[in-house]
Amino acid sequence: MTESVLDYMTRLGRAARDASRVIAQASTAQKNRALLAAAAALDAARDELAAANQKDLDQGKANALEPALLDRLALTPARIDSMIEGLRQVAALPDPVGAIRDMSYRPSGIQIGKMRVPLGVIGIIYESRPNVTIDAASLCLKSGNATILRGGSEAIHSNRAIAACIRQGLAEAGLPDTAVQVVDTTDRAAVGALIAMPEFVDVIVPRGGKGLIERISRDARVPVIKHLDGICHVYVDALADLEKARSIAFNAKCYRYGICGAMETLLVDQAVAAAFLPAMAQMFVEKGVELRGCERTRALIQAEPATEEDWSTEYLAAILSIRVVDGLDEAIAHINRYGSHHTDSIVTEHQGHARRFLAEVDSSSVMLNTPTCFADGFEYGLGAEIGISTDKLHARGPVGLEGLTCEKYVVIGDGQLRG
Amino acid sequence: MTESVLDYMTRLGRAARDASRVIAQASTAQKNRALLAAAAALDAARDELAAANQKDLDQGKANALEPALLDRLALTPARIDSMIEGLRQVAALPDPVGAIRDMSYRPSGIQIGKMRVPLGVIGIIYESRPNVTIDAASLCLKSGNATILRGGSEAIHSNRAIAACIRQGLAEAGLPDTAVQVVDTTDRAAVGALIAMPEFVDVIVPRGGKGLIERISRDARVPVIKHLDGICHVYVDALADLEKARSIAFNAKCYRYGICGAMETLLVDQAVAAAFLPAMAQMFVEKGVELRGCERTRALIQAEPATEEDWSTEYLAAILSIRVVDGLDEAIAHINRYGSHHTDSIVTEHQGHARRFLAEVDSSSVMLNTPTCFADGFEYGLGAEIGISTDKLHARGPVGLEGLTCEKYVVIGDGQLRG
Repeated sequence: MTESVLDYMTRLGRAARDASRVIAQASTAQKNRALLAAAAALDAARDELAAANQKDLDQGKANALEPALLDRLALTPARIDSMIEGLRQVAALPDPVGAIRDMSYRPSGIQIGKMRVPLGVIGIIYESRPNVTIDAASLCLKSGNATILRGGSEAIHSNRAIAACIRQGLAEAGLPDTAVQVVDTTDRAAVGALIAMPEFVDVIVPRGGKGLIERISRDARVPVIKHLDGICHVYVDALADLEKARSIAFNAKCYRYGICGAMETLLVDQAVAAAFLPAMAQMFVEKGVELRGCERTRALIQAEPATEEDWSTEYLAAILSIRVVDGLDEAIAHINRYGSHHTDSIVTEHQGHARRFLAEVDSSSVMLNTPTCFADGFEYGLGAEIGISTDKLHARGPVGLEGLTCEKYVVIGDGQLRG
Repeated sequence: MTESVLDYMTRLGRAARDASRVIAQASTAQKNRALLAAAAALDAARDELAAANQKDLDQGKANALEPALLDRLALTPARIDSMIEGLRQVAALPDPVGAIRDMSYRPSGIQIGKMRVPLGVIGIIYESRPNVTIDAASLCLKSGNATILRGGSEAIHSNRAIAACIRQGLAEAGLPDTAVQVVDTTDRAAVGALIAMPEFVDVIVPRGGKGLIERISRDARVPVIKHLDGICHVYVDALADLEKARSIAFNAKCYRYGICGAMETLLVDQAVAAAFLPAMAQMFVEKGVELRGCERTRALIQAEPATEEDWSTEYLAAILSIRVVDGLDEAIAHINRYGSHHTDSIVTEHQGHARRFLAEVDSSSVMLNTPTCFADGFEYGLGAEIGISTDKLHARGPVGLEGLTCEKYVVIGDGQLRG
């Protein structure tokens, strides 16, 4: 490029702002047409996608990327299928834009309600997984927002090839292809520019490691929808069905160790600890999960001693901390103190305990008799998710179409005057 | 004080965080009891309030405060009445906390919905008007939040006296009196501390001049719900009822010049400009409103020439800019370009024009046949407002109880497992 990165990003930003005005007013049919045409374009471009991805993989290997990263980078035929399926699912979701709620008369005779509208321009910064390009682009498009996508440099060829398919879909639907732009430079200054253009970008969604997210949150001059830790708990209440509790806790930990909704700490009411823990521990040990427990836990099962630090650690691995508590109050206090306000579940058959847990645990998802690993946009019916927010303002928990919109007031009168 | 301002603010912050856990779980009845008891305490403390306010007024006069500021500072009996009435109105509003919506089954068998919950601790920074203390405290209390209020130093005696009444109300309802704390120092460092304690404060709402708000937004380390300009428009469409249009435009400008919902620019379709403007101008001129117009306006009525700067100026005074436009498209483009995304209204009898204006104007309130001066929490049925947000994330427009809450996901299962 002969232009500077800053000039390049400004050009992208201005184009995105212009496109956002068009895409915000696009009809539902037109947006769906673009999504389905992009799906068809992906299907027709399997060879190009594979070739582009091979370049990234070759480069990754040459750069000695870790096997786990290379795996995340690979666009297998199954992953291309699931990108295509994802586009079709988002096309099938109801369009949130323009929905009006709670229209009601005021004593003055005017009517007040709220209309859901797009946020404008969304900047997404993410790491190696190229399928994020499709998830993010499709959700932003359906919710009437323009997007600027900044993927990892190790996936640039794959992301370019995917972007070409999205552009084709937009063009076929008669929408500006600048509604979805992929930053086509690996220069790191592009990220710095993207998060500091409030005139062109309305919100930034960073997806990736905690370091990336903290850095972006600190430096951004635009609002950030962010996800930090997922220190999730399952609490087995005195009035739990212990059989059910074991299968829920096992699923919460072992469905996948590496997801943010994985259980990291198991809390057990002392009244059922002796009946519950031995058989539970056996399941985990057979699966190869390392157990770390408080003293009361270690009196019942074999476990390494848990330190104070364990209670606030997101292992993302086959490690589990276990604590015996004196009941519901102590469980709620533990979760609100050591947890990360992400996702926490109670296992109980007692209605009053459930009611209190759901109300008092201050997390983006509170669950009853459900494994925490369900915390996921697809499982929640959002079609996909652009991320999981652990913030309290605006969106909380998995962010789908609704989190990419806001509501404005609509006021209808017929000449009523004030005062 | 012997402790430092920072220590003092940390103490307030910690107490607010602790109180927020209690107030978040308080029952509707208990919160209403506190509000009504605070109203009774205000009513019983009229003499103390008057005496405290007199101290502020005397000090204000000694400091040569402007008459307008002294007027805003005065706690007249009528203003005390309206604070009492405000508390009663907020008590009568439905409690937003705990409301669950959209609970529905997913194919996996789990049920997903959203529960409305308090934000936590809200910091309010405001200038001389002491009634803000009651508006803010009552809305935060009803929505289950703890509050730290930092009023203007010129109102400190009044705010202290009001705070004593609120504390009494909280105590009578058995709630911690730290749920509403008034910063009892005029040291400016208190503001700096308040906006930089993310561990204790979840959101800051600054109310006051643009300078204050910009400074706080720049320096805050917590999210800010902010209100900047109110450059509001009325657009008189080619298919407007011109009589209705005149009374709407007149009311929008003249109900009160100094409110943020006052019309600053009048846009008129060229097709009706000749029929509409002369009688309209006469109404404004008789009222003493200075008119500034574009060339086409000045061909029809007497007006000073409007400069480019006029289109983006919030006069908050008896000045109005007028522009003749070529139709709906130009009106929408003008508003989205020069406006402040606050409140804008179309006057028309044409359904299609109304539909487009309401959808395409990117403002926190979009209106049909309604004067922009209706943009106000009381008029919208919010009971009061803690401010009017011109941001897009989280709350937009007048912020009442709902804007002081967020939603968490509630997931109910009965042992369903993932995968």
